[in-house]
Amino acid sequence: MRKIEHLGIAVSDLEKSNALIAKLLGREPYKEESVESEGVTTSFFELGESKIELVASEKPGSAIDKFIAKKGEGIHHIAMAVDDIHAEMRRLKEEGFILLNEKPKKGADNKLICFLHPKSTNGVLVELCQDA
Amino acid sequence: MRKIEHLGIAVSDLEKSNALIAKLLGREPYKEESVESEGVTTSFFELGESKIELVASEKPGSAIDKFIAKKGEGIHHIAMAVDDIHAEMRRLKEEGFILLNEKPKKGADNKLICFLHPKSTNGVLVELCQDA
Repeated sequence: MRKIEHLGIAVSDLEKSNALIAKLLGREPYKEESVESEGVTTSFFELGESKIELVASEKPGSAIDKFIAKKGEGIHHIAMAVDDIHAEMRRLKEEGFILLNEKPKKGADNKLICFLHPKSTNGVLVELCQDA
Repeated sequence: MRKIEHLGIAVSDLEKSNALIAKLLGREPYKEESVESEGVTTSFFELGESKIELVASEKPGSAIDKFIAKKGEGIHHIAMAVDDIHAEMRRLKEEGFILLNEKPKKGADNKLICFLHPKSTNGVLVELCQDA
């Protein structure tokens, strides 16, 4: 794993949180993107070699809706940049980590992604991210 | 704010989590450090220009103990590198963010730090971090 690709923050109101996080970081989001397969809209802020991704639900019952209902708004996941997602998925599975998808799927920002189950990673939802 | 300085993960058993996160990242922690003022022990893993910091309670009733009791193990805070913590604290206060300390205090890893209250930052516990 090469770097923190991004940190995902679950928010209820994307517009309101865009304004708040822009004040916090002192810069505007550089893009917004819908990920229909996940039922979410995302926005991105640059932060060094990493990004902050805000994630808001677009569909009642989405994973983000459930997360906010259970834990409230806040840090949702950490995404790690990997060079070869297939090799990393194989390695992590052999090490006993639980993959939430068997094959990489298409995520926001033109990435191939795979999530690891938090119960195998100290309660942290980890996303692997490779440029598609 | 220049980059993600580190991501803090609350853990119950530092030794066990050191081994787990070493497997996840494919590298060993490079140091361990006690922060007596906070009642915690920390360990650090390199990850690009950022770090992963594991934080375990050393004193019953520490902030980490309370966090784990309420939310379970997982991502606890995000630390942002700043060049001038006094100037950032002034700027953020003027923007309406709630500072958890009025003056920078000494944190792990030879840093001057200040936390922002999560209720002013979308549920995210944000730490400002300047090299001391």
